[in-house]
Amino acid sequence: MKYDFIKSIAVDAGKMALEDFRSDLKVYEKKPYDLVTDTDRRIEKFIAEQIKKHDSSAAIYGEETGHTKGKNKREYIIDPLDGTANFVFGLPWFAVSIAAAENDKIKAAAVYNPVTNDLYYADEDNPPTLNECEISVSDRKEINESLIIFGFSANRKNIERYIKDWGILFDKARKALPLLAPSLNLCLVAQGKADAFIDFDCEIFGKAAAAFILQKAGGTVRNYSDEGYDFRKTGIIAANGKIYLS
Amino acid sequence: MKYDFIKSIAVDAGKMALEDFRSDLKVYEKKPYDLVTDTDRRIEKFIAEQIKKHDSSAAIYGEETGHTKGKNKREYIIDPLDGTANFVFGLPWFAVSIAAAENDKIKAAAVYNPVTNDLYYADEDNPPTLNECEISVSDRKEINESLIIFGFSANRKNIERYIKDWGILFDKARKALPLLAPSLNLCLVAQGKADAFIDFDCEIFGKAAAAFILQKAGGTVRNYSDEGYDFRKTGIIAANGKIYLS
Repeated sequence: MKYDFIKSIAVDAGKMALEDFRSDLKVYEKKPYDLVTDTDRRIEKFIAEQIKKHDSSAAIYGEETGHTKGKNKREYIIDPLDGTANFVFGLPWFAVSIAAAENDKIKAAAVYNPVTNDLYYADEDNPPTLNECEISVSDRKEINESLIIFGFSANRKNIERYIKDWGILFDKARKALPLLAPSLNLCLVAQGKADAFIDFDCEIFGKAAAAFILQKAGGTVRNYSDEGYDFRKTGIIAANGKIYLS
Repeated sequence: MKYDFIKSIAVDAGKMALEDFRSDLKVYEKKPYDLVTDTDRRIEKFIAEQIKKHDSSAAIYGEETGHTKGKNKREYIIDPLDGTANFVFGLPWFAVSIAAAENDKIKAAAVYNPVTNDLYYADEDNPPTLNECEISVSDRKEINESLIIFGFSANRKNIERYIKDWGILFDKARKALPLLAPSLNLCLVAQGKADAFIDFDCEIFGKAAAAFILQKAGGTVRNYSDEGYDFRKTGIIAANGKIYLS
């Protein structure tokens, strides 16, 4: 199966987000500190409809609407708007993320930031690209030269856990930044701008696609709580494959 | 004096930053966790030269080169690249900031994000604008509906101070985000996307221009440690003028 049709779906969905980004938004809370807008829901519906035009009997698993069972071995994992909080604040750091899996293995992935017009894509047969140019991870090996992203907002409970688990790395890294939108953060590691991304609670939707892109770009990913990697498990520790995180 | 010439200088300087943003960067540390690139220095030189073409004997005060004495009552305060750490990480959240002061009072201000192509401008005679459209602060009054930005990176010492000073606000706000680049953060409040920005160590360079824009848009600014506002003092507490921060 050729999956590159997900590229144009991601771009078209991103353009919908961009229109709303410049306008007034109604903001809802799914749970405390977890924001959602009508844009998230509208885009997810659009993406699901578009995918069905290409692969009508596949399963679809979206952040907002959950799982729709399929009749073949394929499943599309969608985050219609990864980084919703950034989107709400006016920060141009949100993306559409689409991953295509077969028998529970990712085969292709697209991540699109509509503000910067950056499209990341990889599939089994092709190297990872940013706007059709091949990308790869950084060469930095030393922690004191490293640029590390942590997936937290100013949420006291979460921050305290990150300080407990990674406070020493905050101190040792050349610079560490807190930043939402796992898909784009992982893509920054894939393109060699950042060297690692650590997030204990990022869900499948924001990471399934970008973690695949990062692996294709030479990076490493593992679960937050063990050495394996299962894209369905919450949390991720991702790096350029050269620095040692502990 | 008409100051709107600073708009095109900010835009031209921003285009220089944008070119470097897409390329490989050499990164230096001014002090631990405080990054600088050749881009910062090159742009500051360019801006100073351009300003001198319009106002040859004014003082110039830039983040990278310090103070150049003038021979008239005017001073230009420059941040060539506010949000250098974001720039280095590949986050499209950095800006050129230029403020024009007379007798120590801000008279005009320009802030430009070259990635999003957003130009904020205000002067004494004109309302604040984003890309020539007038902007104003949000109407939100309740803390539990508010979107608040805090100026911290994943720096343990700083985070601990923010938690001590503002931990209760982290909990009460609808959403709180840590985010560097004071100029753009203040502009988000000025345009009504965010409701407050709090930063105990932002310097004059990143805030002089944007705090003026925010005031013109209906917002309030004060020093971090007292109720007054002196743009030369480090730190800022800025809000939409409707929510009560304590």
